[in-house]
Amino acid sequence: MGLTKINELKNKVGERVVVNGWVHETRDQSKIKFILLRDVSGIAQAIVTDDNKAVFDNIARVPRESVISVGGVVKAAKITNKDVTERDFEVSIDKFTVLSQADTQLPIQVSEKNDTTDLSKRLDYRWLDLRKPRNALIFKIQTAMEMAMREYWVNNGFIEIHSPKLMGFASESGAELFSVSYFDKEAFLAQSPQFYKQMAMASGFERVFEIGPVFRANQSHTTRHDTEFTSIDVEMSFIDSHEDIMKFEERWLVYVIEKLKDRYGKEIKETFGVDLSVPKLPFPRLSLEEVHNMIKETGRDVSYEEDLTPEEERIISKIVKEKYNHEFVFVKEFPWKIKPFYHMRDEKNPKVTKGFDLLWNGLEVTTGAQREHRYDVLLNQAKEKGLNLGSVNFFLNFFKYGCPPHGGFGFGLTRALICMLNLSNVREVTFVFRDIDRLIP
Amino acid sequence: MGLTKINELKNKVGERVVVNGWVHETRDQSKIKFILLRDVSGIAQAIVTDDNKAVFDNIARVPRESVISVGGVVKAAKITNKDVTERDFEVSIDKFTVLSQADTQLPIQVSEKNDTTDLSKRLDYRWLDLRKPRNALIFKIQTAMEMAMREYWVNNGFIEIHSPKLMGFASESGAELFSVSYFDKEAFLAQSPQFYKQMAMASGFERVFEIGPVFRANQSHTTRHDTEFTSIDVEMSFIDSHEDIMKFEERWLVYVIEKLKDRYGKEIKETFGVDLSVPKLPFPRLSLEEVHNMIKETGRDVSYEEDLTPEEERIISKIVKEKYNHEFVFVKEFPWKIKPFYHMRDEKNPKVTKGFDLLWNGLEVTTGAQREHRYDVLLNQAKEKGLNLGSVNFFLNFFKYGCPPHGGFGFGLTRALICMLNLSNVREVTFVFRDIDRLIP
Repeated sequence: MGLTKINELKNKVGERVVVNGWVHETRDQSKIKFILLRDVSGIAQAIVTDDNKAVFDNIARVPRESVISVGGVVKAAKITNKDVTERDFEVSIDKFTVLSQADTQLPIQVSEKNDTTDLSKRLDYRWLDLRKPRNALIFKIQTAMEMAMREYWVNNGFIEIHSPKLMGFASESGAELFSVSYFDKEAFLAQSPQFYKQMAMASGFERVFEIGPVFRANQSHTTRHDTEFTSIDVEMSFIDSHEDIMKFEERWLVYVIEKLKDRYGKEIKETFGVDLSVPKLPFPRLSLEEVHNMIKETGRDVSYEEDLTPEEERIISKIVKEKYNHEFVFVKEFPWKIKPFYHMRDEKNPKVTKGFDLLWNGLEVTTGAQREHRYDVLLNQAKEKGLNLGSVNFFLNFFKYGCPPHGGFGFGLTRALICMLNLSNVREVTFVFRDIDRLIP
Repeated sequence: MGLTKINELKNKVGERVVVNGWVHETRDQSKIKFILLRDVSGIAQAIVTDDNKAVFDNIARVPRESVISVGGVVKAAKITNKDVTERDFEVSIDKFTVLSQADTQLPIQVSEKNDTTDLSKRLDYRWLDLRKPRNALIFKIQTAMEMAMREYWVNNGFIEIHSPKLMGFASESGAELFSVSYFDKEAFLAQSPQFYKQMAMASGFERVFEIGPVFRANQSHTTRHDTEFTSIDVEMSFIDSHEDIMKFEERWLVYVIEKLKDRYGKEIKETFGVDLSVPKLPFPRLSLEEVHNMIKETGRDVSYEEDLTPEEERIISKIVKEKYNHEFVFVKEFPWKIKPFYHMRDEKNPKVTKGFDLLWNGLEVTTGAQREHRYDVLLNQAKEKGLNLGSVNFFLNFFKYGCPPHGGFGFGLTRALICMLNLSNVREVTFVFRDIDRLIP
């Protein structure tokens, strides 16, 4: 197609190029007109002077956010514009065409740097909101993050699965479940791939991963909850304990963060003010009791609840950051009482499970565990939790014909992005957000 | 954990190893017992003679498909067993433990080579069915296939998206739609990411991909339909026509098939009898009219319907294979009448769209098109198709504020796998299959 991307202009000085993009801004002066042209790779300045009458008279009339095609020679920039990403060069326009004209009234602004538009309105016009280079960058980072995750898995012999999202029975608790009208039956949307990634262990796949949507009929309006999100799931066989899962997860994260730092470290620093640092191995590990004690030692109140409160998650991350200079902390030895029936209990202390959470900068991004793979023990645990055996029977069957010891974890994509980029709301990093009130766009 | 995988035994001759795996088969002779041990990487023979009384007396009693851990020295094999993948070496067992004992009655057999078990029963016990090395291989190939696809996209500047599966309105026709009870409202499951990948074009992402589930309330029981499947989606901006999309797709497939041939060509040949060949560029392109004429020339009946019948898809692929020695063929110039409202019509012949199908060995694996990005034209096309404008209005809005010319395609993962491996049923290549009758496991 012979098009030049904006971040390639620097290699084409003196050449005539054709650049397609959006009209980010227009500055209309008496003898010269400046167009800031934006494409996915950056923003460049394009100029036209009044000696090119045809272009000069028309270009400033093109509404902002229209899509245009510009032809011209790449020259050294005379006046540097601080809003462009390619500061040293500009395009001297000799010709342009409008590919798609925008309405003159934009419902939200794209080029404003200090955007004060209400988040809800921005989400109503998400397709315009995502044009902001800062928002597009989030999804470029997400792309590189997932690619690095998959590289690590594939290099370590993992098999990718796509587990069904339509289920005949509730996947875990039965709460917060979406019901689907399935011909003359009822189906449920999967709340996690849990049962199926464990099935893959019974199938002898040994190591699997999945990145896919999960659904939770969650009524809350917090900054970290939604009704649909992207879950990143891992399950591994032939482990000795959940310690093997933690060891895997921390090495995987080091690989991913190293890759992201190489590729986007500079942009992350410039745009989000975050100095991405590759975490040291091993990540700190604390029992729930140790967490309680450490919070108490700082003179703060401790809930002594069976799970950490969001406030306690923030506090312990702060303490760990000060004490160990680490953004991550594994918390383990949670009571069996609050954990799902398929977690394995600790042989030495059956009151706790062989499970763990991972906190990153104050927010839980992972829950993981060694699973109970012994049919009889698992059946008893299901009974002890008071589950409807009819609805977990299909799952229990997976353990009847030989199933290796195994464990795994789930990792929240959007939570990880906000932890990493120091953002405060998963709505900012979700392509098209869903909650109780939002089904559109 | 110090474990050795079966495909690593060849590097450990003379060493003592620990291998974990499933008891694939047991042969019990008076002086020697043979265990075929299977893990995700292969099958090896392990032997024990009667001078190791403790092991000898117990190991043959372990039911097939139990999971065991075996310790012993790797030696040159005395008797080669044709069922193992590592033929030259065996493990001389000195110790073993049972990690998970299987029921003695297996509902389906895993180690039988000529499996005549009814497919439906195999799917009831899918977790056992997937233990067959042939079936596990399908998912290893799938993993490598998707990884190669993503490499090509990421190397070409694509952004990954996760579009919402819960929608406020029907995504395309309104037919075959699953309804979800969404708090006090109704939601629908996405039949494709179509509207959202086009939204990403309006967002200036320029090139996007998604691999994710789609849902169709399809009542048929054919070998190629299901109610949930994995869709592979691509959308690209600043194209001149659908020809640019076809050019992209054929290069992408060449990259993917090259990678698969390198990694799994040998196994695909041995297991499925298929000699994977990298297709020549460009792929043949035929108009629907040319397809009709070519079928007619062979003396066969032509339906002259507006779409190819499954039988005609098989015939034209056969003709193309004979005439051009090519497994792929693009078919284009389908009537506007049968295509969705968002396809762009051909300026020279508005009766047809700028869309195409891609057939691979007789089966349609792709539908693609340049999309109509002009708001007014798109609105008229929606009206002409008699759509409920209320339910597509949120989509039409994407085109009001500047949207580049764009197009893309959808690609069916399971269809591609059966075309490539010469299989006849998508049930064989779906991890856990869903149709009108099947919601379990």
